[in-house]
Amino acid sequence: MGGGTILVVEDETLILMEMEAALEEAGFAVSCFTSAEAALSAFDAAPETFKALITDIRLGPGKSGWDLAREIRPVNPAMPVIYISGDSAVHWPSEGVPNSVVIAKPFFMPQVTTALATLLNDQQPGENA
Amino acid sequence: MGGGTILVVEDETLILMEMEAALEEAGFAVSCFTSAEAALSAFDAAPETFKALITDIRLGPGKSGWDLAREIRPVNPAMPVIYISGDSAVHWPSEGVPNSVVIAKPFFMPQVTTALATLLNDQQPGENA
Amino acid sequence: MGGGTILVVEDETLILMEMEAALEEAGFAVSCFTSAEAALSAFDAAPETFKALITDIRLGPGKSGWDLAREIRPVNPAMPVIYISGDSAVHWPSEGVPNSVVIAKPFFMPQVTTALATLLNDQQPGENA
Amino acid sequence: MGGGTILVVEDETLILMEMEAALEEAGFAVSCFTSAEAALSAFDAAPETFKALITDIRLGPGKSGWDLAREIRPVNPAMPVIYISGDSAVHWPSEGVPNSVVIAKPFFMPQVTTALATLLNDQQPGENA
Amino acid sequence: MGGGTILVVEDETLILMEMEAALEEAGFAVSCFTSAEAALSAFDAAPETFKALITDIRLGPGKSGWDLAREIRPVNPAMPVIYISGDSAVHWPSEGVPNSVVIAKPFFMPQVTTALATLLNDQQPGENA
Amino acid sequence: MGGGTILVVEDETLILMEMEAALEEAGFAVSCFTSAEAALSAFDAAPETFKALITDIRLGPGKSGWDLAREIRPVNPAMPVIYISGDSAVHWPSEGVPNSVVIAKPFFMPQVTTALATLLNDQQPGENA
Repeated sequence: MGGGTILVVEDETLILMEMEAALEEAGFAVSCFTSAEAALSAFDAAPETFKALITDIRLGPGKSGWDLAREIRPVNPAMPVIYISGDSAVHWPSEGVPNSVVIAKPFFMPQVTTALATLLNDQQPGENA
Repeated sequence: MGGGTILVVEDETLILMEMEAALEEAGFAVSCFTSAEAALSAFDAAPETFKALITDIRLGPGKSGWDLAREIRPVNPAMPVIYISGDSAVHWPSEGVPNSVVIAKPFFMPQVTTALATLLNDQQPGENA
Repeated sequence: MGGGTILVVEDETLILMEMEAALEEAGFAVSCFTSAEAALSAFDAAPETFKALITDIRLGPGKSGWDLAREIRPVNPAMPVIYISGDSAVHWPSEGVPNSVVIAKPFFMPQVTTALATLLNDQQPGENA
Repeated sequence: MGGGTILVVEDETLILMEMEAALEEAGFAVSCFTSAEAALSAFDAAPETFKALITDIRLGPGKSGWDLAREIRPVNPAMPVIYISGDSAVHWPSEGVPNSVVIAKPFFMPQVTTALATLLNDQQPGENA
Repeated sequence: MGGGTILVVEDETLILMEMEAALEEAGFAVSCFTSAEAALSAFDAAPETFKALITDIRLGPGKSGWDLAREIRPVNPAMPVIYISGDSAVHWPSEGVPNSVVIAKPFFMPQVTTALATLLNDQQPGENA
Repeated sequence: MGGGTILVVEDETLILMEMEAALEEAGFAVSCFTSAEAALSAFDAAPETFKALITDIRLGPGKSGWDLAREIRPVNPAMPVIYISGDSAVHWPSEGVPNSVVIAKPFFMPQVTTALATLLNDQQPGENA
């Protein structure tokens, strides 16, 4: 019954596969990438396809998860953003975007699926209108 | 461990079956109907059985989902209401009831189960007292 | 620093004057009416002027406060609505509109000014986007 | 337009007078006491008179503000509670009651009036029903 | 991807096993006990292991769920607490701790998993900072 | 009863004076500046003095209100931030910091005082712990 996909960005392949499996089992469709640059290319090609962003904060040598969210929000200001954080959660109050959530590792997967569903419901057009 | 059921109303049989399956897999008990009139008959016969209402807004020639919620709430003012909407979400600010949620199609099923669980928890007697 | 006014509707003149005085002292500009019909005429003439609606529920022989809110919301779906209620609060779950507040008499005036400021802030375009 | 009063308990007379003045200027009616025991006597004599409790946590040799709130809530489970705290806020997660607020000294008076108005609005019967 | 476990306390073994199964299927790791005393022994031995508390209120002859939460919160003030209640929800406003949830029997299991995930997300260090 | 002051930054002197007067009348102590640079100098000299930031977004040739909040939050991650916006509210979803509020001109002064009091109460140590 869904439409579009969730953009998931994580540079550690094993964790990315685990998140993909858990999100799909919960009922979400996902598109997975291992760098901010690859995610941005896919997003720019079809921005209306992506319903939410789940991103690790540290993403190797290129752009960070902070950068990624700040580049996506001008195109889709209502897009839900969930940051997954190892030790970077402490920077969220100054580096995060508004109406985002940060989930610190270690975490339980239902924290991600519940945060995602809640943020998607909060940005329903009718509810915010 | 549950008691009672969730009242689910949707006039498209295939979508109704998909919602029934997803809600039951999540752990809810459901009672499904394809019209507001049939749902109201069941509700009036045993109102205390039903713990929440999930309803499509457009329900064919008879009463709408807006009507249905307005007829149920006087009997159970705290009953959670979730509207499923194709293109009617824009009317929610004037046609919806308070403390309801509207979920626009297309959506992911965890949006419905999370909204349902959250609304049920919010109306716990102890929490609101 | 404000712009526009708050639409206040109450059929008891003494209470209306007291609310007008308290809202203006708090820093709001208000436009006061003693019937739903008079308020609707003013609203229809310049809907963009009015930033929020505060209305008694029982308004004499004509339209009620419930009716008034349902007629205004299609024009301005985000308009904050505060119902002032004598003994009608019990009907709010079925008669009210979403994202509204009901304040039961007797009440303290800061309840109205705080609810009004909070609802106005919640509908800021940037915050919900 | 109000009815009933706010129960304010503080053992330092100068602070109590300052709170009384600020709450009354904001539009609340208040009943002030310098000990939990005196406040409980007044409350037990006419519990329906009191609409909310604002209490210092440390109240001299007798009962504390924690005790006071736990004795009042069984009689009025929905009564808003605001604790004013010097250095005791750290004990709130284990000693406070649900749906209460703790405000740490030093604070600005609008924090108290806004918290009070917000809690009173949250316990409106219609809104929680 | 998780770390630590959820402390689950329930004196009826069949219900405890059902909750254990449902929580593990949702993706949580759990540690189950049939009395408050046994749960406290495990908690005191390694408090940092436990991420949240789910407890029945009536727990046989010893300490109650109310007692258990009040003893754990001073050690971990941010620990999410969910009370499962038969007929004791009415005492929550005076006996519960702040930032807790009470879920009354009968309930649907997704109410517990959603409340748990939501409370865990709310106490993320970054989010509250 | 307060301690410390609210940092208010606005490059239009007349508006700054009006905000200063309204905030002080409400019961807040304020420190006013006409540029981000001047505000930062004062903040860096005594960061613990400042309890919240209210800032216009456009501040002339130097740093913007967006920049100012991002430089202050690493020092005080819990500091409430209110942006006052002419036509820049649309950039808040990508340029704002988490847990901030944007208030668009024109506005009523109680919107600012209520948002400020609410944010200050939300960051009380006890409540978030």
